[in-house]
Amino acid sequence: MKLHTYFRSSAAFRVRIALNLKQLAYEPAFVHLAKGAHRQPAFASVNPQALLPVLEDGSTVLNQSLAIIEYLEEKHPEPSLLPGDAASRARVRSLSLLVACEIHPLNNLRTLTYLRKGLGQTEEQVATWYRHWIADGLAKLERELTADKGTGKFSHGNSATMADCCLVPQVFNAKRYDSDLSPYPAVMRVFDACMKLEAFDRAQPSKQPDAE
Amino acid sequence: MKLHTYFRSSAAFRVRIALNLKQLAYEPAFVHLAKGAHRQPAFASVNPQALLPVLEDGSTVLNQSLAIIEYLEEKHPEPSLLPGDAASRARVRSLSLLVACEIHPLNNLRTLTYLRKGLGQTEEQVATWYRHWIADGLAKLERELTADKGTGKFSHGNSATMADCCLVPQVFNAKRYDSDLSPYPAVMRVFDACMKLEAFDRAQPSKQPDAE
Repeated sequence: MKLHTYFRSSAAFRVRIALNLKQLAYEPAFVHLAKGAHRQPAFASVNPQALLPVLEDGSTVLNQSLAIIEYLEEKHPEPSLLPGDAASRARVRSLSLLVACEIHPLNNLRTLTYLRKGLGQTEEQVATWYRHWIADGLAKLERELTADKGTGKFSHGNSATMADCCLVPQVFNAKRYDSDLSPYPAVMRVFDACMKLEAFDRAQPSKQPDAE
Repeated sequence: MKLHTYFRSSAAFRVRIALNLKQLAYEPAFVHLAKGAHRQPAFASVNPQALLPVLEDGSTVLNQSLAIIEYLEEKHPEPSLLPGDAASRARVRSLSLLVACEIHPLNNLRTLTYLRKGLGQTEEQVATWYRHWIADGLAKLERELTADKGTGKFSHGNSATMADCCLVPQVFNAKRYDSDLSPYPAVMRVFDACMKLEAFDRAQPSKQPDAE
């Protein structure tokens, strides 16, 4: 398999974790998001959405990180990143989507760039925006983790799931922008448990070959 | 089943379509998003994420629209809203996530409200922002629908899928903000095919009991 990735892309980071958890080897293809390599015609033929990550599995070309993780789960069920019953699977998917739909899209590179260039916002305004959505989203995640008895050592139960593949890159992003993480002890407890696993550690941005 | 819904919520609209396609009856519970009813303590006990929709199935309480649709698919497989093979399922999930992660979060009520109140943007700036992300996202969706031979009468194949449950509410939103939809003929062809189905028509905002 070939993974189109960028060290700092948190959506690519999610898939790197999932591949590592499932002990699936992949060949990386580096796409320099900050230099706009994803907007070049060569990449558009790989992904009409012009986004990372993309996973190539033989002739099958997949995009959108959560769709890729669901595909890996179906093709390589063990170890499973989704629990066994429908209600628990819905919870894990919901926690994943809380990060992927409610936090990340508001704070990713292209959004921040448009705030600067499209709306002419200052760096201070962009930072205010960033921290607002981190605080809003992580507060929701904290409530989810503390309100539900399905939470264990990890976001759901005592083994890593798709939800953890989303939580960890989001916390990395929040740290990068110096967000205050002290209001989210349950989130940080799960984060710390994940980072003790080699699959998460090896997937982190600074350990990628394209890290700067 | 009980669905916590608001006529104008496009995430609730997705789930209304899915329930209708699967011919599942539900009791609606109306939550007035524009009046902030989702931020009241009573609703926080229903959904720690303070977002719509929420589906209650007996004692199981589910949130996040795509997680709810996946749950309905597992519990009530026919008619299926996901195709039979893993690569096609990944495509349908990707098209769904393209709307749910790349377009909708940037243009929903709370985001526009924060642009106005948090960053002090004018209505004109908010409208510019809105149309930018509609144009960016629908162009990606148009490329996906025209580039892949999996596209049929609907987003994938010749029966409605989860991808159509996402496409239709997004087009409704774009129309509401007077976006130019002429650059997206494939998107609009699928939209028109969907709206001929009673399941989509009956789920639309103006036909909800709480419509204003």
